[in-house]
Amino acid sequence: MASDYIPPVADYAFLFGEAFGLDLVARGTGGAFSAEDATEIVAGAGEFAASVLAPLEVIGDREGARLEDGQVRMPDGFAEAYRAFVEAGWITAEAPESAGGDGLPGSIRAGLGEIWNGSNAAFALCWLLTAGQIHALDAIASEEIRETYLTKLVSGEWTGTMNLTEPEAGTDLGAIRTVGMPRADGSWGISGQKIFITWGDHDVAENIVHLVLARTPDAPAGAKGLSLFVVPKLLVGDDGTLGDRNAVTTVAIEHKLGIHGSPTCVLAYEDATGYLVGEVGSGLAGMFVMMNSARAGMGFQATGISDRAYQQAVEYAGGRLQGSVLDRPAGTPIAEHPDVRRLLLSMQSRIFAMRALGVYLGDLFDRADTDGTLALAEFLVPVLKGWATEDAIAITSDAIQVHGGMGYIEETGIAQHYRDARIMTIYEGTTAIQSNDLIGRKVVRDGGATAESLFVEMTATVAALREHDDAVATRMAERLERSIAAARAATASVVGFGQTRDAYGVSVPYLMLLGTLAGGWMHALAVAAVLGHDGADEADAARLRAADFYAAHHLPRVHMLAETVAAGEVV
Amino acid sequence: MASDYIPPVADYAFLFGEAFGLDLVARGTGGAFSAEDATEIVAGAGEFAASVLAPLEVIGDREGARLEDGQVRMPDGFAEAYRAFVEAGWITAEAPESAGGDGLPGSIRAGLGEIWNGSNAAFALCWLLTAGQIHALDAIASEEIRETYLTKLVSGEWTGTMNLTEPEAGTDLGAIRTVGMPRADGSWGISGQKIFITWGDHDVAENIVHLVLARTPDAPAGAKGLSLFVVPKLLVGDDGTLGDRNAVTTVAIEHKLGIHGSPTCVLAYEDATGYLVGEVGSGLAGMFVMMNSARAGMGFQATGISDRAYQQAVEYAGGRLQGSVLDRPAGTPIAEHPDVRRLLLSMQSRIFAMRALGVYLGDLFDRADTDGTLALAEFLVPVLKGWATEDAIAITSDAIQVHGGMGYIEETGIAQHYRDARIMTIYEGTTAIQSNDLIGRKVVRDGGATAESLFVEMTATVAALREHDDAVATRMAERLERSIAAARAATASVVGFGQTRDAYGVSVPYLMLLGTLAGGWMHALAVAAVLGHDGADEADAARLRAADFYAAHHLPRVHMLAETVAAGEVV
Repeated sequence: MASDYIPPVADYAFLFGEAFGLDLVARGTGGAFSAEDATEIVAGAGEFAASVLAPLEVIGDREGARLEDGQVRMPDGFAEAYRAFVEAGWITAEAPESAGGDGLPGSIRAGLGEIWNGSNAAFALCWLLTAGQIHALDAIASEEIRETYLTKLVSGEWTGTMNLTEPEAGTDLGAIRTVGMPRADGSWGISGQKIFITWGDHDVAENIVHLVLARTPDAPAGAKGLSLFVVPKLLVGDDGTLGDRNAVTTVAIEHKLGIHGSPTCVLAYEDATGYLVGEVGSGLAGMFVMMNSARAGMGFQATGISDRAYQQAVEYAGGRLQGSVLDRPAGTPIAEHPDVRRLLLSMQSRIFAMRALGVYLGDLFDRADTDGTLALAEFLVPVLKGWATEDAIAITSDAIQVHGGMGYIEETGIAQHYRDARIMTIYEGTTAIQSNDLIGRKVVRDGGATAESLFVEMTATVAALREHDDAVATRMAERLERSIAAARAATASVVGFGQTRDAYGVSVPYLMLLGTLAGGWMHALAVAAVLGHDGADEADAARLRAADFYAAHHLPRVHMLAETVAAGEVV
Repeated sequence: MASDYIPPVADYAFLFGEAFGLDLVARGTGGAFSAEDATEIVAGAGEFAASVLAPLEVIGDREGARLEDGQVRMPDGFAEAYRAFVEAGWITAEAPESAGGDGLPGSIRAGLGEIWNGSNAAFALCWLLTAGQIHALDAIASEEIRETYLTKLVSGEWTGTMNLTEPEAGTDLGAIRTVGMPRADGSWGISGQKIFITWGDHDVAENIVHLVLARTPDAPAGAKGLSLFVVPKLLVGDDGTLGDRNAVTTVAIEHKLGIHGSPTCVLAYEDATGYLVGEVGSGLAGMFVMMNSARAGMGFQATGISDRAYQQAVEYAGGRLQGSVLDRPAGTPIAEHPDVRRLLLSMQSRIFAMRALGVYLGDLFDRADTDGTLALAEFLVPVLKGWATEDAIAITSDAIQVHGGMGYIEETGIAQHYRDARIMTIYEGTTAIQSNDLIGRKVVRDGGATAESLFVEMTATVAALREHDDAVATRMAERLERSIAAARAATASVVGFGQTRDAYGVSVPYLMLLGTLAGGWMHALAVAAVLGHDGADEADAARLRAADFYAAHHLPRVHMLAETVAAGEVV
């Protein structure tokens, strides 16, 4: 049964307007946005998502995508939903103004990203890949490619894919064997096999633009020999009209644990016509623009899937009677059983933390050009991706637990979120890839300077909390301060290890430490914002409770992980 | 593809013979067993399981059980495997001598329990329920029922089920509505609907004995009004011959996330003929004998499923080449990538901990009659069940992670373990039910005395470790000692809370704390045993490494959880 989806508009209003005090007017390229405008955009997306996308989530899971005579057929309703999505302008909303889009601030796009994923994660992957390609082409493509392809992506007429993985080249992109051969007319002939291509084929839009990593003749070995090509599913004439099928074949689609509504394709390129994007040999750099966008997007996906599961758990626990509830009147539902309540608060407090960090990160990227926060933004991408997706597995598991035996029955629908969530720590780079990026390219390289700049900001929040005579603020300040100290010690350990197995042997624990800490900081900011109010309502009380819970149940993990990090690799 | 199953015989040999120095000769009721005998029995089970049960695990998942014209049909090969299982004597091996069984020590039965579950968890559930009913009937049934039913269960000719849950009575058994009406001939008419009945119907044995909780006329409300009945699928004549179908109908089987090879049935009783077991109104007490056996069995299932997933991850990681491995020669497989190695050690060290605690618990029950350890044994049942099953979810998730993108493809077969594992924290009592039992009936009731007796034993191990001049022993002693101190503080918190929401709001964190600590203690015992050797081989080195890893990566969780426990319920 399809569960309802309730867009988390109030949280975004709080984050935009209060918690971060975002100066959104200055952020977007597409005009001036107030916090109220921003909330209204998110609310509009929520309304669309709840009515159009959410009801298809279960259908996507049950029917799944099918491969018929070389063409992927999407589940019932997906094509209509995609058209409505495009017509409502939600693809264009993602694009920068320079590409003909709305130029929305990154913080708002974080909210949209969560909402597409929360309502229908399988569908949202089409948006995510298309959006990522829009940002990549906008950054590096020639005028010709912008005109022919980028405009069609921004209008939503065509969709985009990301073609990296091959059977022997997953994490190690340097092993890619697909080749691009130059042709006399300036185009390239692309040949090879790509696997795990999300939305690699479908029938919801008239054309698909594949962004393909391939090796050119005489290119150096490894990742430096890779170039980037756009390869359309249907060839495009000089006048922009669609022609014959290009030599790209969908060989198979995968039978997966989850996200059945997202077709995962094996694509065979046999001298398919492609066009170079950027310079020969700079393929990886171009792909990283798309990848950074997709990795941040995974944070939004983790938030969205987690929140959908949480909402369903809340609904079940609020309606189910079972046993008498300690210290509560007869007829109290299981939501008030101490351990069910613990599970629900555990989920809720983690979801708020990742949602807030997503908005913060989106805003950081907007500010990067003006206030030099790019290093911090790039530092936080792997933290958000790695931590939020790992936590999402735990959250969706908790949602099953709240349902008891009913949680294990597929018809209940809660298991889908658990199955869907399990891919997130793998695709767009496994958690280890995120943590290696974090440690190798960031922490060790700058001697912990960026991490320290983050700790300084967090410490300022501790000081702000100390100005309030409030029990929650006092507890939070004490716990956050101790956690920052543990994180500093762990950072010093990692920097001391340098580029060694000791560092990489504890890189995931270190990443999880930072994510957990950043989540606590988000709650601390929320506490400070709430206590800045005159008076307090039920929503404020709920924010304080969630923060207090996070500080007591999740934040102490920082100390556990710090002890692990200090040990280095166990040999 | 069915993965091979390698029975963990070496670990059991180590546990039986060295780590615990078990005086097995004195334990079983069925004769004298040396550690060598015990290992041989486990090895025999392993051989059977690897060749007969393991190949059917994937078939069970893909085909699943089907309901056809009111009769459950099991997947191909299950009936033959069950016959072979019975003929090899593995059902009889579970039974006490008083019931005509082999009277094996509990420590050996822990090993067998793991092996049935590791090779084929869905199949093992049939064994688990039958074994549980054997122990329950042996403890409380009349001579007549022993003769008619128990003998057939022990011989393996019939199988057993456990009928508790109803749509409105899951965790709250007091809400059970199924009724038993006395008849003139001494039998009872049973009417009602039971759900989630594992192996509630099948075609692998000629009859099924349902052990049913039901309410008698004029019985008091709640759990005290429940009585226990045996209700056969086929009626049994006075001479023991099988007659007509009893009035028990399989209404439906569930479509579940996992364990597809185990039929989960909805059973309708319509004045079905049943026979009272024990006294009227003592149903719950009788069912608890079965439940305790089944809960300990969940510890073995958690170990088995986790180890199967681990074995498959080891095989994949040892054969997969991807990227160059830091500080290792070219051609080193991904198993040596620092984070893959971390995942594998994380899994391995947790599995050893739960395996060892299962053996320890089995032995405790054997000793209970002679040395008064029953309180400790009953204390550890919910700890093992709750902690091992929760950890099994994390371990099977790690096994997917090791596979990267291939882990998400169902054909790889690793996702099955993850899906199968997810039920274990729910059935036989959710983790919250285990932790409420632990806190409410044990820790708070005896003022922490049993917990303290455990801490005293652990502290003796710390002292034993201190006698060795060894880096691993030194680190383990220091970490274990600190963890014991944290556990004592947490226990004092819980005892101080008493029977309040503060205690029940942190009961699961407290249970996980004790399980994690007990796991560390098991490793500490292993370290002491290994260092007691003259010389050390590769197996010894691996045990030290696993212990050192557990102490650095898992044991610190005790401190995290102690901070959470101290906070009580967050209001």
